Amino acid sequence: MNELRVGIVGVGVMGADHAERIVRKTAGARLVAVSDPDLARAEDLGSRLDARVVADPLELIASNEVDAVILASPGFAHAEQLFACLEHGKPVLCEKPLTTDSTSSLEVVRQEAALGTPLIQVGFMRRFDPEYQQLKALIDGGELGQPLVMHCAHRNPTVPPGFDSAMVIKDSLVHEVDVTRFLLGEEIASVQIIKPMSNRDAPRGLQDPQIAIFQTVSGRHVDVEVFVTTGVAYEVRTEVVGELGSATIGLDIGLVRKSAPGTWGGRITPGFRERFGTAYDIEIQRWVDAVRSGVNVDGPTAWDGYAAAAVCEAGVRSLETGERVDVELAERVGTR
Amino acid sequence: MNELRVGIVGVGVMGADHAERIVRKTAGARLVAVSDPDLARAEDLGSRLDARVVADPLELIASNEVDAVILASPGFAHAEQLFACLEHGKPVLCEKPLTTDSTSSLEVVRQEAALGTPLIQVGFMRRFDPEYQQLKALIDGGELGQPLVMHCAHRNPTVPPGFDSAMVIKDSLVHEVDVTRFLLGEEIASVQIIKPMSNRDAPRGLQDPQIAIFQTVSGRHVDVEVFVTTGVAYEVRTEVVGELGSATIGLDIGLVRKSAPGTWGGRITPGFRERFGTAYDIEIQRWVDAVRSGVNVDGPTAWDGYAAAAVCEAGVRSLETGERVDVELAERVGTR
Amino acid sequence: MNELRVGIVGVGVMGADHAERIVRKTAGARLVAVSDPDLARAEDLGSRLDARVVADPLELIASNEVDAVILASPGFAHAEQLFACLEHGKPVLCEKPLTTDSTSSLEVVRQEAALGTPLIQVGFMRRFDPEYQQLKALIDGGELGQPLVMHCAHRNPTVPPGFDSAMVIKDSLVHEVDVTRFLLGEEIASVQIIKPMSNRDAPRGLQDPQIAIFQTVSGRHVDVEVFVTTGVAYEVRTEVVGELGSATIGLDIGLVRKSAPGTWGGRITPGFRERFGTAYDIEIQRWVDAVRSGVNVDGPTAWDGYAAAAVCEAGVRSLETGERVDVELAERVGTR
Amino acid sequence: MNELRVGIVGVGVMGADHAERIVRKTAGARLVAVSDPDLARAEDLGSRLDARVVADPLELIASNEVDAVILASPGFAHAEQLFACLEHGKPVLCEKPLTTDSTSSLEVVRQEAALGTPLIQVGFMRRFDPEYQQLKALIDGGELGQPLVMHCAHRNPTVPPGFDSAMVIKDSLVHEVDVTRFLLGEEIASVQIIKPMSNRDAPRGLQDPQIAIFQTVSGRHVDVEVFVTTGVAYEVRTEVVGELGSATIGLDIGLVRKSAPGTWGGRITPGFRERFGTAYDIEIQRWVDAVRSGVNVDGPTAWDGYAAAAVCEAGVRSLETGERVDVELAERVGTR
Repeated sequence: MNELRVGIVGVGVMGADHAERIVRKTAGARLVAVSDPDLARAEDLGSRLDARVVADPLELIASNEVDAVILASPGFAHAEQLFACLEHGKPVLCEKPLTTDSTSSLEVVRQEAALGTPLIQVGFMRRFDPEYQQLKALIDGGELGQPLVMHCAHRNPTVPPGFDSAMVIKDSLVHEVDVTRFLLGEEIASVQIIKPMSNRDAPRGLQDPQIAIFQTVSGRHVDVEVFVTTGVAYEVRTEVVGELGSATIGLDIGLVRKSAPGTWGGRITPGFRERFGTAYDIEIQRWVDAVRSGVNVDGPTAWDGYAAAAVCEAGVRSLETGERVDVELAERVGTR
Repeated sequence: MNELRVGIVGVGVMGADHAERIVRKTAGARLVAVSDPDLARAEDLGSRLDARVVADPLELIASNEVDAVILASPGFAHAEQLFACLEHGKPVLCEKPLTTDSTSSLEVVRQEAALGTPLIQVGFMRRFDPEYQQLKALIDGGELGQPLVMHCAHRNPTVPPGFDSAMVIKDSLVHEVDVTRFLLGEEIASVQIIKPMSNRDAPRGLQDPQIAIFQTVSGRHVDVEVFVTTGVAYEVRTEVVGELGSATIGLDIGLVRKSAPGTWGGRITPGFRERFGTAYDIEIQRWVDAVRSGVNVDGPTAWDGYAAAAVCEAGVRSLETGERVDVELAERVGTR
Repeated sequence: MNELRVGIVGVGVMGADHAERIVRKTAGARLVAVSDPDLARAEDLGSRLDARVVADPLELIASNEVDAVILASPGFAHAEQLFACLEHGKPVLCEKPLTTDSTSSLEVVRQEAALGTPLIQVGFMRRFDPEYQQLKALIDGGELGQPLVMHCAHRNPTVPPGFDSAMVIKDSLVHEVDVTRFLLGEEIASVQIIKPMSNRDAPRGLQDPQIAIFQTVSGRHVDVEVFVTTGVAYEVRTEVVGELGSATIGLDIGLVRKSAPGTWGGRITPGFRERFGTAYDIEIQRWVDAVRSGVNVDGPTAWDGYAAAAVCEAGVRSLETGERVDVELAERVGTR
Repeated sequence: MNELRVGIVGVGVMGADHAERIVRKTAGARLVAVSDPDLARAEDLGSRLDARVVADPLELIASNEVDAVILASPGFAHAEQLFACLEHGKPVLCEKPLTTDSTSSLEVVRQEAALGTPLIQVGFMRRFDPEYQQLKALIDGGELGQPLVMHCAHRNPTVPPGFDSAMVIKDSLVHEVDVTRFLLGEEIASVQIIKPMSNRDAPRGLQDPQIAIFQTVSGRHVDVEVFVTTGVAYEVRTEVVGELGSATIGLDIGLVRKSAPGTWGGRITPGFRERFGTAYDIEIQRWVDAVRSGVNVDGPTAWDGYAAAAVCEAGVRSLETGERVDVELAERVGTR
């Protein structure tokens, strides 16, 4: 297939990020159209990223020039836009929530099912996070044994104005809902929300923190602390306790595992590709950018290569002689 | 400028990785040509990534269809290929080493300087690694005070056949040479190689581990343990000790800093974009791939969105009532 | 006051430990009497530690030779023995539980109160643990702000035969009950026990793990995972989440604190007395033991002192000359 | 043998600590005499700890009332005092250094050897530190394979006035000298001191940091950073790199080990005695002190025992019913 022509509906923080992502980091895709009720915002982005601005989101979805759609519009707009995607047979990546209530969500599910072909993906991005992937692999590989209990914490330093107690559930806890279903591979059977003493620094009327207790269909226990006004940082932590050991992610030190007979620890990055893969990615991208802009170099220069060679030669002489060897560098050439 | 047309000389492990990187992850660049003495290897890669195969590397460098060159050929071939790049005015990203000796490296530096325009970048990729970047920022921001001492370790589990004692210096230690120059911002004045008791599991004739002692021009001390047959994992560690504190990277737990009055620790990932940026990148790429291949969905489905909505609704009811609320899900629709 | 003459009732694992503790590590106290239904066990310990064996625990408590009592008998025996201590005005350190039910416990409290002088201390030893002390100090010093939520985990690798579901609460959870009351400084208002899917490796009939939810009088939330058949190790963890940050103990890496603006970490041991205090204690005790046994030395010898002096002298010469200096040692004297 | 009657020569910081240690924490020993050139200091300590003050250290050593001696006098006084101990056949624990130069140290070794019975132990206390013990056990158990390289760091926040460059070696580095000999079990063959750029906050004339390079007799490499004016904290770190893996102590997170196939981590405290042994020690000592002083209780009270019983009873009811159960406490009795 040719390059995928992507249209984005809603270019606030999330949608604009995705637009950059399509343009800067994604192979096989091209950003062709954006739509946003804030027309100025859409035009600014469109001109910067060379995408057409379409005022009406349904027109964008219907457009022949758009192969697939990213929905980053507010949740209340999703249902209508999703139905439009289904109608026009457009694959769509829909930021969470699918819709704002389960009744309309179920209707979306049914209409998609009636089409007989999957078109809708939901933006629960944690499933793609390397730490969650590692945790999932541990569970599925049986290394923790049967999982019995899961502890989660979801902390934000602050929330935007107007964030209310129900949004703690629908906007924050919803991620842990999906993490639970993803990691344990089964549905949640019941929910209980506990309201502890509330943070005095939380906006008036906001119950924060909240504790959620899930029981899964097979009887596993999950507890979640959601605390969105900690003032500290963005912290997301998950611990799975199984019959053979436990593992925690989100402690800022990678996946930490506890196993019989009483050891704790993690994996060392296995090789240079894993350890420095991101560095290579950045190196190449910045070099490409530098060449395209005419600067040509944005990193170590030929002089750096020369200096390294001179030091290594001195090193090899020291290896042979056992003595300390002075490094003789030529007069500096150029100014960089 | 239009998309940068990139040619790659040498498509072994490193060159093939870079080819994938250009094609899959790099914005603004296109892979147009590859060259390798192993023609079958070149053709295999070329046909897979849709790049022309040019048998003669110098012809690739000279080609009008190639705007810029990545050199991933063996070090001994670099000098001639670099001179060709300079001759044709082609920007080049040259994997380390620049050349295999300091005399030819200096000649490269001089010829580039004579051109009056920078064309050569050297592939010391660690400068782009987020942990090294953080460490550099700490130093340059003065947060460690004047750096006085640096301790490095560079450990590989194994080395390929034929790896000899001088290669420990030229292939492995060379990275620490550049790290030293990068982090401390000055040249290395002397080198001493210490040969401790050698690993009995190292290939015969290979002195391993080796200890390198650098003194910088301003008198700072750097020591490096290079140990390339540990059997454990790929470990690269750097600790900078300054007048106001110290910081270490490569402990598998992020940058760890020690500061007055006696605390140790690191930074929590500040926000969701930093924490889950990679997850979003992967999500979008995999979704684009899924749509292009006709599968349309490679991640959470509409049902996942529906189930999350149903759980959140139960959560909001529990928030209001204080009671545990059962989650009522519709009959499963579809099979995914 | 002269040395305290201590009698111990019950010399199973715990009581025997305390007996050793009194004899080996406790200043100002002397073990004078022990009592145990297993007379052989009592006599063995008594002869080893030079303490009189008293068959009847009430006689031990009443004895004029006993100033104070440690109760390490089974919980069901505590009530009668505590009343005896109160009757005879004997200070008593009573291992938990105080008694096996709250009615008799309250009666003990009332009788002690009627005496007008405190006599009874309960063995909730975690209050004396340095990590709990640090956590308590953080809370009381206001460094975490108002505590809002607390998460605890209490894990044992295995339990003895006969350990049942109620014992999970009375023997294990009881520690977290006290930790909650100690750290938060208030009573617990309600308890809920959640029974998740149970470990298949747990003895038949034992519900394990169990999740306890406490609400304190002022509305704080505490959750506790008690899992006594993990097969892994003994793990006890407490995290306190407050309005200004959070802190966790029991992660095997000391107290770890998270604070604004987004840092995590701990304290470095401040000085050599803290870092090596235990080493000094052990050194002195082992030296005293060695001298008493006629061996005289159980640690570094005079030769070790000489060799260190020789190396340091070489070091000082190297400091002066900048050269490597060989260490010349005399012929080894003696065989140690 | 009866209680060991100990005399201490020199009751500055270290000697006074040891005096307290003998009195408060050491079984089988009694402090009987102290001596110090600062008579007021000696008398203060002597009256507080009920020990006789002897003005002349040689008289203390000779005294029939003293079975064994701790030398905590300045290093320059050790030789004479050690010879006196040998003459009178008194076992002696001598704080490091044995003497201030290797010639006199060797003479001490020879005179002790001539007696045919060991009398002298040197105060290298790190050999008794639990982390060094664990590291030693790993090495001796072969779990790291043959040790090849060792990296040490020894950092002090500050040093007392008058601390000079040679004292960095004799007072600080000397510990790493002994650690090297202890862990590797062989002598040091050569020493090299490297003087990097010095800390501007160090006292004038003090070379700080210093780097020491040891080569052992069998060819192992040890490097040590000694940095005594860091301003941060007291940090002592040792890493041993062996043929099968490496292990580090002193990172504030216990012993951390790296092993094939690429894992890092430590041991979880295995059981409650290890985890809470110190807590029990403190509990018992503080209870004994409280009873001796007439306060009787210095820890959890009977009320705490009652409250715990009431919570556990509610917990058992919740276990049975699955419901949340309120805790009913009696009216508070007493004021504690």
